[in-house]
Amino acid sequence: MFDVTRYAKAADSIIEAGRFLYQRGWSPATSSNYSARLDEQHIAITVSGRHKGDLGSGDVMVVDLAGNPVQSSSRSSAETRLHTVLYELFPEVGAVVHTHSVKATVLSRLVSAGHSLILEGYELQKAFSGVDTHESTLTIPVFNNSQDIDALAEKTKQWFASHPGQPGYLIRGHGLYTWGETMKDCLRHVEAFEFLFECELEAMRVRP
Amino acid sequence: MFDVTRYAKAADSIIEAGRFLYQRGWSPATSSNYSARLDEQHIAITVSGRHKGDLGSGDVMVVDLAGNPVQSSSRSSAETRLHTVLYELFPEVGAVVHTHSVKATVLSRLVSAGHSLILEGYELQKAFSGVDTHESTLTIPVFNNSQDIDALAEKTKQWFASHPGQPGYLIRGHGLYTWGETMKDCLRHVEAFEFLFECELEAMRVRP
Amino acid sequence: MFDVTRYAKAADSIIEAGRFLYQRGWSPATSSNYSARLDEQHIAITVSGRHKGDLGSGDVMVVDLAGNPVQSSSRSSAETRLHTVLYELFPEVGAVVHTHSVKATVLSRLVSAGHSLILEGYELQKAFSGVDTHESTLTIPVFNNSQDIDALAEKTKQWFASHPGQPGYLIRGHGLYTWGETMKDCLRHVEAFEFLFECELEAMRVRP
Amino acid sequence: MFDVTRYAKAADSIIEAGRFLYQRGWSPATSSNYSARLDEQHIAITVSGRHKGDLGSGDVMVVDLAGNPVQSSSRSSAETRLHTVLYELFPEVGAVVHTHSVKATVLSRLVSAGHSLILEGYELQKAFSGVDTHESTLTIPVFNNSQDIDALAEKTKQWFASHPGQPGYLIRGHGLYTWGETMKDCLRHVEAFEFLFECELEAMRVRP
Repeated sequence: MFDVTRYAKAADSIIEAGRFLYQRGWSPATSSNYSARLDEQHIAITVSGRHKGDLGSGDVMVVDLAGNPVQSSSRSSAETRLHTVLYELFPEVGAVVHTHSVKATVLSRLVSAGHSLILEGYELQKAFSGVDTHESTLTIPVFNNSQDIDALAEKTKQWFASHPGQPGYLIRGHGLYTWGETMKDCLRHVEAFEFLFECELEAMRVRP
Repeated sequence: MFDVTRYAKAADSIIEAGRFLYQRGWSPATSSNYSARLDEQHIAITVSGRHKGDLGSGDVMVVDLAGNPVQSSSRSSAETRLHTVLYELFPEVGAVVHTHSVKATVLSRLVSAGHSLILEGYELQKAFSGVDTHESTLTIPVFNNSQDIDALAEKTKQWFASHPGQPGYLIRGHGLYTWGETMKDCLRHVEAFEFLFECELEAMRVRP
Repeated sequence: MFDVTRYAKAADSIIEAGRFLYQRGWSPATSSNYSARLDEQHIAITVSGRHKGDLGSGDVMVVDLAGNPVQSSSRSSAETRLHTVLYELFPEVGAVVHTHSVKATVLSRLVSAGHSLILEGYELQKAFSGVDTHESTLTIPVFNNSQDIDALAEKTKQWFASHPGQPGYLIRGHGLYTWGETMKDCLRHVEAFEFLFECELEAMRVRP
Repeated sequence: MFDVTRYAKAADSIIEAGRFLYQRGWSPATSSNYSARLDEQHIAITVSGRHKGDLGSGDVMVVDLAGNPVQSSSRSSAETRLHTVLYELFPEVGAVVHTHSVKATVLSRLVSAGHSLILEGYELQKAFSGVDTHESTLTIPVFNNSQDIDALAEKTKQWFASHPGQPGYLIRGHGLYTWGETMKDCLRHVEAFEFLFECELEAMRVRP
């Protein structure tokens, strides 16, 4: 059993996040999924296949950390397990956002298999929780895309269990996952990632 | 004779589509045309030469599938026949949208004569109706532009008669045609195409 | 003496044009100037140095075709003479718009001295009044920038006297001039030019 | 002691500037800081770490020119000293804005250590106060980023003491500082800089 007021607040934060992320062009064509924690066992998460710029109260449901619907006959995002492993791994995480931007998609296809995207020397790295200098290095792993979500979820869980300080990851040709203590932190992370992705791509566009 | 209420609803969907597509920059300078099916014999379609971001009730008319105006003295888009062949070919199609974006224009000029644009490895391919994995391959034919619309319409009809599963086509230096069961599906397809076009162009911009 | 109602309508069309052009990013930082014809001897034109996204009734004045203020103590744009030569040359012209976009600026610096920008093979060329096929060729001359506006105005007048069918010109490192029978035509021309400039630049960005 | 009405007006100008600059994408993810002069000894400045698109009355505080809070228990931006040296140096300066755009970030990383960004031949250079021809040359120094703000502030103060006519500077991988007699002038300068940065980058993107 989950607290209904917590669900209502989590759903509101997800609906508002969708408006922001769709309007920025980071969740086009019914792609993406978002979640927010209710308690140790439950999260609110978007129902599969909805238009993210126009979410309503029927588009957010509750699942437990195994990904099973709770008090709902809707079907949650096919990628629900990618969200729940993060809540399992990090008790302080309160929100997870997955977006599908052009920049994340293109960059993720440029990084070779087995390599990570390295971000360094940017003042904006300080936008990530826990980072207080541009002299830090961020390592953003790129996982191969797969329709076998359980296997992919397991890979991400293992990677972040040994790299808990890194703020997100990419799936090749697919998009970005990032998280935070609150939805507000989470959206700041998305905004910082998109800024840094654009910087990286722009540097490649103008490279002599 | 067509059902007037169906016409009114189709016209509303076209007017709203125009606001969306113009605002995105995909229907500039009175370009583009949109249609929606009324029944087996009739479609609603934009009147020639109107500003697509500011369509009103006088800017959508009815034609039969041969392209003749019905109960109207207006002139429909010069490209009406490109719409009607799709309704003839695919009984399930309810809406057809033709847009003129920079990306569609530039990409269509980069593909060599007789070749198609190939899209593969993108999660967002799943935004197209009937596609359920990023491991699919989309083949988007590029037809040479022509002011002889009947001849061009016949070419597109023949191509799609033998490739019914593909979601759209380009005309060189001109723009995109795509369709769907509903106008909502159709707009999701436009949004997915524009995303994928931008990914393809961005990959070329940063290519070493 | 000019008709006051014509002035009021012309001023409204200029104020509205400014909101549109500033919002698109084509008239940044108090740059640009716009005019509309009142009669054979008078035009309404923007006062020098105003923010184009926020024009008010005090920001549009009247000048005669020699560029002298009429019933006003304001100072019109330093480039007033570039407007008036077009009204002198083309009796059917009702509006002239000068914009400062990044694309016009960059493209104009890429064209060699003494050369023109050539646009061909684009369906969107049909957005220009009098063009009815993508098989046309548009020749857009690029004049060197100068703070000697009278000399520059004379050069443009001579060029267009012998090329009356071309829809606009560029000043190097500076911007675009275009015109039309009405302000609506004029803004459609700006939109078409910006589309075509972006196509040309994008083709250069992705060129192998 | 400072004048409270001046504080209230300065705070309003800062809040409005934040909405504009965030909406343009130049102050993402709680980055950036803005200030406005109250008198010879005091400025209003943004509190550290706030979302710049949504500043409220609690997000602007007063500091003296040494950077000490006045009648406030809030903490001002870590970069406060970069603002106050400009007010010390230039008695006519009424507002200072620091932004974090992608373009400023990328360009600042492309300029070699010890070099400046040179801007010339652009009509839009006239948007900077005191510049009246495109034949001028603007020299924009690029300082290495540092978390030692006092040392960085001293370097900027020395440079501008000997180059008082230049309108701003970059910090590598970090962003832009610019200023003006009023906040309106200051925002016109930001807009002109962003235009010129985009022109410079675009010229590099299309360079053969």
